[in-house]
Amino acid sequence: MRIGGVSYRTVWADYDTGTVYAINQLALPHSFEILPCRTAEEIGHCIKTMVVRGAGLIGAAAGYGMWLGARANAQASEEAFEDAMRACGKALMRTRPTARNLEWAVERQLASMKTASTVPEKVALARATAGLIADEDAAACRAIGLHGLPLIEGLARKKHARTPGAPVNILTHCNAGWLAFVDYGSALAPVYAAHDRGIPVHVWVDETRPRNQGASLTAWELEQHGVPHTLLADNAGGHLMQHGLVDIVLTGADRVTRRGDTANKIGTYLKALAACDNAIPFYVAFPTSTLDAAIEDGTTEIPIEERGAEEVRFVSGKLPDGAIKAVQICPDQTPAANWGFDVTPARLITAFITEKGIFPATRDGIGRMIGA
Amino acid sequence: MRIGGVSYRTVWADYDTGTVYAINQLALPHSFEILPCRTAEEIGHCIKTMVVRGAGLIGAAAGYGMWLGARANAQASEEAFEDAMRACGKALMRTRPTARNLEWAVERQLASMKTASTVPEKVALARATAGLIADEDAAACRAIGLHGLPLIEGLARKKHARTPGAPVNILTHCNAGWLAFVDYGSALAPVYAAHDRGIPVHVWVDETRPRNQGASLTAWELEQHGVPHTLLADNAGGHLMQHGLVDIVLTGADRVTRRGDTANKIGTYLKALAACDNAIPFYVAFPTSTLDAAIEDGTTEIPIEERGAEEVRFVSGKLPDGAIKAVQICPDQTPAANWGFDVTPARLITAFITEKGIFPATRDGIGRMIGA
Repeated sequence: MRIGGVSYRTVWADYDTGTVYAINQLALPHSFEILPCRTAEEIGHCIKTMVVRGAGLIGAAAGYGMWLGARANAQASEEAFEDAMRACGKALMRTRPTARNLEWAVERQLASMKTASTVPEKVALARATAGLIADEDAAACRAIGLHGLPLIEGLARKKHARTPGAPVNILTHCNAGWLAFVDYGSALAPVYAAHDRGIPVHVWVDETRPRNQGASLTAWELEQHGVPHTLLADNAGGHLMQHGLVDIVLTGADRVTRRGDTANKIGTYLKALAACDNAIPFYVAFPTSTLDAAIEDGTTEIPIEERGAEEVRFVSGKLPDGAIKAVQICPDQTPAANWGFDVTPARLITAFITEKGIFPATRDGIGRMIGA
Repeated sequence: MRIGGVSYRTVWADYDTGTVYAINQLALPHSFEILPCRTAEEIGHCIKTMVVRGAGLIGAAAGYGMWLGARANAQASEEAFEDAMRACGKALMRTRPTARNLEWAVERQLASMKTASTVPEKVALARATAGLIADEDAAACRAIGLHGLPLIEGLARKKHARTPGAPVNILTHCNAGWLAFVDYGSALAPVYAAHDRGIPVHVWVDETRPRNQGASLTAWELEQHGVPHTLLADNAGGHLMQHGLVDIVLTGADRVTRRGDTANKIGTYLKALAACDNAIPFYVAFPTSTLDAAIEDGTTEIPIEERGAEEVRFVSGKLPDGAIKAVQICPDQTPAANWGFDVTPARLITAFITEKGIFPATRDGIGRMIGA
């Protein structure tokens, strides 16, 4: 991804100084800032406060966090090192409960370090694994783009038979673009791939209350890439679908179960229902690191994060003078509830787009995905 | 409805001075203000800018607006008077295209004035009819509350057999309370009736982007009445329903077709889909003045208002210093689209609650409603 002509990832490390850098997503879209982190605790704080967010990105950030944790304990005894790393992993996993990639990255780091016998070797492995997790995430997202591309090409061909040059209208929810991963994105990767090949696309961007990742992040990264798009209230998608204004829905995923139930940003389920009711294809894109093959039933088994009421009671944005402020949208005493994710049952999902290819959202399909 | 111990309607007239007063809903929930209107144009402006909004209320306001128009033309010739009133009606109807009650009130005023032969008689009839429209709206909403009450009582009985004292959880979208009518409300009328009879109720309040009528109006009026409630992002309803946290959905309506398709605030359709998917009863409450028996297919025949992009790009609320400001939630150049309503197909609606009783959302049911 390029921002103002410069290539970026959302997170990267300076291995010499022991610093991890991340794009501060809390400052977007109003300013572009890079935050340095020097400890695993700082990484955990960034994940918890959503300086970094998005399935793949919090996995990669946690991978780097484990390396910072290992580096800080490089002088410890072997036993103390292992205790410290287990505690470090637990602390990182506690920051966001729903996203599979976070625990996946921590578990991968712990398993990888087990293969070494000395602390210096473990630290070196943590460093290598952190880099690998990030590189693999970017590569997986790039592959998701290429696997998803034919879907958009097919829709364009069908559409252009009737209306030459008409854009393929893609609805997306939350941010599953390159900001949610190390690079490329999941749901938006096929969109970027299609746009780069000259296929006319247009993205309907759900604002995605309460944190407005669509309005603040998806709209921003689509603008950076020059992809035509239109912002919507989350309420609007059903109306658009009833009127033939959506050709395909593409979303990301935070955790996918063995049978294909999919946790994603709260409100995704409502869009899947509307897509089903209007016979519009509904695809979920994710790197297979998001798969949690240990569970089946998404609605009862995926832990759903509950966040603070203030995210619902207040909306943050830019005042005319440029100051970023939060305004209160309800009476002073109004209580609010704030679940961060919902679960879309597999039956509502047309198919999954992964780095390994496209698979039906069924036990069989996921079996093939695992075996691929 | 009582506010701080004083009885109010949302709109009323001082017939001697030719002034119509309305609660300024743009100032809520942060301050309570009454706005005076002295001309039909001022009434039209209040409807257009949503100082007054809600199906029944804009009907009643338009009724009063027609009286102000008649009063202003009391010295005109008979022919000039009729031309002026037709123009006045057209101008009022142009302010909000989707709500049936608005054109219904204008048509009723024009038809009523036709029965008189002199201009002074016509002005007197306009005054009487304006009052009648408002009184009937309040009476209809009161009856809606009583007809809807047994539904909530039934849910409470069923629930209390398992969990004594557990509240009936009602989800509502937008504001269909007394602020949306002259008094009592439509969707909230049964809720108030149940609460007043000591039945424990709890309301899930959709914030209702882009204009947040749930957060700013429904939360406020429920608090005034002491009804327990919790504010939600519009995205959350599906998750709640999947987890058994909603016993019934109650919404209002802006226009209902002969076969039962229902236009209501954008996003209602998504909640109806989720209710259907989770076998939760979905009721729509309206006075029969909202019925448009001249049309059948809601999706193709109901005109859907498109409002300004700024309502999506900005969110208005209170700063810590008490100032009311709008913050921009997206990049400076982001385009936005803003449909005000969507259409819920009749098949997703359990039944209609009207002042005449409860009717199935079918051609037959509506036939009986018309005949009742």
